[in-house]
Amino acid sequence: MPASPIRKLVPFAESAKKRGIKVYHLNIGQPDIETPVPMLDAVRNSDFKVLEYSHSAGNESYRRKLVTYYKSVGIDISYTDIVITAGGSEAILFGMMSCLDAGDEVITPEPFYANYNGFAVEAGVKIIPVNSSIENGFALPPISAFEEKITNKTKAIIICNPNNPTGYLYSRKELEVLKSIVKKYGLYLFSDEAYREFCYSGTHFSAMRLEGIEENVLLMDTISKRYSSCGARIGALITKNSEVLNTVLKFAQARLSPPTFGQIAGEAALDLPHDYFDATKAEYKLRRDTLVSRLNDIPGVFCPNPGGAFYVMAKLPVDDAEKFCQWVLESFSYNDQTLMMAPGSGFYSTPGLGKQEVRFAYVLNANDINSAMDCLEKALEAYNQQK
Amino acid sequence: MPASPIRKLVPFAESAKKRGIKVYHLNIGQPDIETPVPMLDAVRNSDFKVLEYSHSAGNESYRRKLVTYYKSVGIDISYTDIVITAGGSEAILFGMMSCLDAGDEVITPEPFYANYNGFAVEAGVKIIPVNSSIENGFALPPISAFEEKITNKTKAIIICNPNNPTGYLYSRKELEVLKSIVKKYGLYLFSDEAYREFCYSGTHFSAMRLEGIEENVLLMDTISKRYSSCGARIGALITKNSEVLNTVLKFAQARLSPPTFGQIAGEAALDLPHDYFDATKAEYKLRRDTLVSRLNDIPGVFCPNPGGAFYVMAKLPVDDAEKFCQWVLESFSYNDQTLMMAPGSGFYSTPGLGKQEVRFAYVLNANDINSAMDCLEKALEAYNQQK
Repeated sequence: MPASPIRKLVPFAESAKKRGIKVYHLNIGQPDIETPVPMLDAVRNSDFKVLEYSHSAGNESYRRKLVTYYKSVGIDISYTDIVITAGGSEAILFGMMSCLDAGDEVITPEPFYANYNGFAVEAGVKIIPVNSSIENGFALPPISAFEEKITNKTKAIIICNPNNPTGYLYSRKELEVLKSIVKKYGLYLFSDEAYREFCYSGTHFSAMRLEGIEENVLLMDTISKRYSSCGARIGALITKNSEVLNTVLKFAQARLSPPTFGQIAGEAALDLPHDYFDATKAEYKLRRDTLVSRLNDIPGVFCPNPGGAFYVMAKLPVDDAEKFCQWVLESFSYNDQTLMMAPGSGFYSTPGLGKQEVRFAYVLNANDINSAMDCLEKALEAYNQQK
Repeated sequence: MPASPIRKLVPFAESAKKRGIKVYHLNIGQPDIETPVPMLDAVRNSDFKVLEYSHSAGNESYRRKLVTYYKSVGIDISYTDIVITAGGSEAILFGMMSCLDAGDEVITPEPFYANYNGFAVEAGVKIIPVNSSIENGFALPPISAFEEKITNKTKAIIICNPNNPTGYLYSRKELEVLKSIVKKYGLYLFSDEAYREFCYSGTHFSAMRLEGIEENVLLMDTISKRYSSCGARIGALITKNSEVLNTVLKFAQARLSPPTFGQIAGEAALDLPHDYFDATKAEYKLRRDTLVSRLNDIPGVFCPNPGGAFYVMAKLPVDDAEKFCQWVLESFSYNDQTLMMAPGSGFYSTPGLGKQEVRFAYVLNANDINSAMDCLEKALEAYNQQK
């Protein structure tokens, strides 16, 4: 079982803080945006007497209301197509366990969300990467690159759209390309759409809207980022493939039920005003623009301007970004401040790839991002001079 | 992936209710006891602004307080020996995935908690049953029975103490027997102690107190039953084996964190007065005594009087208990009432075993239990006359 690459540097950050240094955390996708008050209030005002198991697939009232939400984003489903999960994490795990046998393979564009590795180990399956490169902004690799990786063990493709760690927003055209591969080889398409609502350039096109492969598509979703509710541990697995859903339901029954309080919060989120995302999106867009522009202003740094999520991957003028990230925490400060980044190599499974890259999560306000970029600029100068 | 045996009969219960028949649910371990108000109040009074991920191992404040609870029941651990999980379910799954490789075997006395099968499938391992029989009250099978099942694939023994589905409370002597097997063959001992606080005859002796096999023991725990908080989805995996714990932590990191609200409720539970369990235990004991005595008064029925949990397994004078359980819901009522039981065969993995047995969960008050037993008595008469 692999360790989380994001958490490796935690001890160095802790020790920097003990030395009195302020650390800007751009390393982890914990949003600073406040959780909508009506969600927390729904939990605070709950008045049941027994904190019971819910239905293994989640409260029916919640699932019925989700149908309306999905309809509003162009996804046409019934509440019986939904299984509520303990975060998006459990949805991904259930998907892998339900559709793949031990030893089977799932292809994903690389770099990819590092915890896919963990879920793959748990499900006894293998992640097979198809390289996407920073030079063309992490666009979908060509069909031929996928076809090179397809074996008789290949059962699925998993994408995260918009992407973590790259922020890349797949176009409808790219999704049609995926559809053609999925159809030709009879694969499942797992679509992790945790960041669906956070698109700043272009619009989101869900894999659930691809016509003719309804039985192949599994949507993995979560309220964690959408409503800044990571601690609720509420996600969903959605598919029109009833055979797959039956298997998912068996896994859901084995673990009895998703968390009750989180479901209350999740259901309340569906009553938020329609413009709720506008302010949040505007805030994230400002941060993205600030971060990307500051990064590209630093000599030797290259950062594509991604369409969504709240991450960017940037290439730094350093030999080894992991060493650099550690050095920035261990041996550097500027005005008693420094920053924490996630080394890019942790998001690649092909050895040697991403060595000069780092991921930034823009979960801090623009002022803090500017201060963090001041630190990064000075740090790169100092790091490269010392050698 | 096997379906939950307890849930198979749900459609028949639903259809009985639609016909206006009151169904006494003795089939599932959802307690009717009210969740302690201070636990719910702690959640209701929470005043954070962002519902963040917690530490992957659970909030440190909660883990530190748990140390005091465990000390009070004779278990001496440090807070770093604890990983908070999404219910006891996740603790069992993490234990299996961390200690066993695909294809490995875990031995358990049969009948056993049916979801162990589900977790075993998820972890890619095999449950190997050792038969315990209703005739001697489901006591621990002799050492020789375990030894017959041990192969080079055997990595662990899992017990549930007190037991679900039998209610059997393992004695200290029996735990010492398990220790000798574990030591001789270098196995892990998984101890599922979900019902620890509910012992009515005899006292509970935790596997964590076995001396000399500290590195072999994993405790799986949960607040679900103890504080009637099934929907909180909060459990714990505890071990002094730091290598195992490191692996568990990687699984915990992959799924990010346990539910935040549930942890708040769980932490508040540790401030309940010391006599909190007294009233609950007295209530359960009354129910057990009522149920066991009523069952044994029915001609042809045999039910051992178990020491703990809130389950009993009884042998009924029927050819096939599963058919009978379905018939009771489908074709029988007495004063417009009937009852739902869990067929015993679902708790056995050896084909043909438990065919005459059913599990009763005494999660209803004594009056309702009496009414349910009136129904059962009449149902058995009618069922056996019709043939």
